[in-house]
Amino acid sequence: MKNISLLGATGSIGIQTLDVVREHQDEFTIKAISVGKNIELTRKIIGEFQPELVSVQNFDDFNTLKAEFPHTNFTYGDEGIIETAVYEKADILVNAVLGSVGLNPTLQAIECGKTIAIANKETLVTAGHLVVDAAKKNNVPLLPVDSEHSAIFQSLQGEKEKNIERLILTASGGSFRDRTRSELEDVTVEEALNHPNWSMGAKITIDSASMMNKGLEVIEAHWLFDMPYDKIDVLLHKESIIHSMVEFHDSSIKGQIGTPDMRVPIQYALTYPDRMPLPSGHRLDLAAIGQLHFKEMDLERFRCLKFAYEAGRIGGTLPTVLNAANETAVAAFLEGKIRFLQIENLVEKALEHHQTIDYPSLNVIHEVDKETRQYVQSLL
Amino acid sequence: MKNISLLGATGSIGIQTLDVVREHQDEFTIKAISVGKNIELTRKIIGEFQPELVSVQNFDDFNTLKAEFPHTNFTYGDEGIIETAVYEKADILVNAVLGSVGLNPTLQAIECGKTIAIANKETLVTAGHLVVDAAKKNNVPLLPVDSEHSAIFQSLQGEKEKNIERLILTASGGSFRDRTRSELEDVTVEEALNHPNWSMGAKITIDSASMMNKGLEVIEAHWLFDMPYDKIDVLLHKESIIHSMVEFHDSSIKGQIGTPDMRVPIQYALTYPDRMPLPSGHRLDLAAIGQLHFKEMDLERFRCLKFAYEAGRIGGTLPTVLNAANETAVAAFLEGKIRFLQIENLVEKALEHHQTIDYPSLNVIHEVDKETRQYVQSLL
Repeated sequence: MKNISLLGATGSIGIQTLDVVREHQDEFTIKAISVGKNIELTRKIIGEFQPELVSVQNFDDFNTLKAEFPHTNFTYGDEGIIETAVYEKADILVNAVLGSVGLNPTLQAIECGKTIAIANKETLVTAGHLVVDAAKKNNVPLLPVDSEHSAIFQSLQGEKEKNIERLILTASGGSFRDRTRSELEDVTVEEALNHPNWSMGAKITIDSASMMNKGLEVIEAHWLFDMPYDKIDVLLHKESIIHSMVEFHDSSIKGQIGTPDMRVPIQYALTYPDRMPLPSGHRLDLAAIGQLHFKEMDLERFRCLKFAYEAGRIGGTLPTVLNAANETAVAAFLEGKIRFLQIENLVEKALEHHQTIDYPSLNVIHEVDKETRQYVQSLL
Repeated sequence: MKNISLLGATGSIGIQTLDVVREHQDEFTIKAISVGKNIELTRKIIGEFQPELVSVQNFDDFNTLKAEFPHTNFTYGDEGIIETAVYEKADILVNAVLGSVGLNPTLQAIECGKTIAIANKETLVTAGHLVVDAAKKNNVPLLPVDSEHSAIFQSLQGEKEKNIERLILTASGGSFRDRTRSELEDVTVEEALNHPNWSMGAKITIDSASMMNKGLEVIEAHWLFDMPYDKIDVLLHKESIIHSMVEFHDSSIKGQIGTPDMRVPIQYALTYPDRMPLPSGHRLDLAAIGQLHFKEMDLERFRCLKFAYEAGRIGGTLPTVLNAANETAVAAFLEGKIRFLQIENLVEKALEHHQTIDYPSLNVIHEVDKETRQYVQSLL
């Protein structure tokens, strides 16, 4: 029996994590969850999974739920997320929160020796150096949940790091993959949210359309697999069937393949190094799909990806700037305040504006994150 | 340093094995080789690789070479192949001979504790039960050299057998993949020998066109990976880029991918469980290829594959009949004695004619092999 603490239980990855747990009730127990403001769904999750500890975002919701569920322990706020992350009865932390709020709880859970299943991009993007160092020091496995990183992780099983030639992250191209740059001028929020392959949250769907999502994944891959940026390539593959690949120096490539179903990488992280059946999983029928397409990535068409490589290569606080500027710009786009292509312009401006600080501490990262958000807000 | 005994040094796989050894002279030494009748090439191989022991097919060639190379040990005939296979200074046997002549030497080498890199299909097809049992008993690794089996073997590294849902062997479809059955009536030997992806020997190229090659591979996969036939599927994939795949019960698939270059699986068998660079290897450029195609296998279009599944499922001596009938029929086709579609008719007749003997000994296998060849000859 694996005991799970789940951060971000009501989000897209959180819900799918609960789907996996539901299919394997003899194997997994949800011991603690953190949620945001979706109290209705939180009630259902408490009813079904009966976690011992629940952390909500607001004090009001905390009071409401405490009255409704007298046998459950509640907490709230940023401190509540940390309490959930380090909950002593949990063996594994699934970090599926959105945004930089996932960083501190992850570091604390690592210090407590929890296995980390990481779906929160910002944690590695902004503080990869701290997270990887802490994981090494505490001998804690960092298990990827993203489909691309899980594909690489699966492909690397039984292989030696020294034999890796390069990682090949595949990218669907997002909602606008078939449009030219000039056709991106006037795209709407609804169009951007219409991802062809994956059903995900709004922020990540916009990031897919701008290719920033792949950029963040490149930086994550750098940290997760200790791989220089020159050895991380991105390949356009519109069907998202080959989830990613590893090329070895004998020219052999291994890839992980399947239907686009996030429950597969989530479950792999939970069962690793073993696997378990996923009864409701959809088996891939390559003959029915018929064709897989591949195309070179164009860093001028997808400038956010170029910015991510640049920020990753320079390192220090620059990936934090990349991420904070992007989050702020995407929020502004979703609120209808800016046009789609302004996202990358704002990111570019924020990167140019920043003086990189090397090996930043958690405090410096938080500070730079805050400053960047304010700076981008000031440009809106 | 790994010391290699190479059976079939002048054949297609043999030559490519020598290419791999040439690129890694600090890692591999050719200690012993067996060859057929290509004495000119044998002279060159002796000059370059200086094996200590050389086995030729004929007594005359034995005498000729002995006079020419006084510092090399020579032997000949079926006994010579066995001497080569069990040569005491070799650690690993690469069995790249064609036909059932590879069987006995492999079993003898297993008894001597040699690691076996197996490219000789007949060994596993006709005597899989004996070979696998002997390998288990002597704790000897059986390493596949075929690109498909190597792909599966590579995909299985770090994975547990219990989690396998099925093996997916890919098939290019061979020279006639785009023709209907009726268009196969009058195909010529030259057309059949024109394989679209792989440069191989004549027999295996015809077997690719008839899909018997894939049938033999299905039976090999059954033995190599201890997999029931219901869990071995064949998928048409005309580019031969995904060399084969393994599906796990969580619906995740792992595949090995690359340019069609036999040196990669050969080298993997020699370096396993490690890898080494293959400097002259061609890196795959999926973006340049652009598309990969997949199509369901049609067992009525490719009847030899259906026969192979049937023979494999029934087992005993029936795969020996399948193989011997096919070898005889393919030889007759290459000699212009029969038409292409008669290959499968002769195989079918031989299978129907035979009374299967279960758990055959080596002697019974040889006897059935001989009888089948005579029977098919009698039908020509």
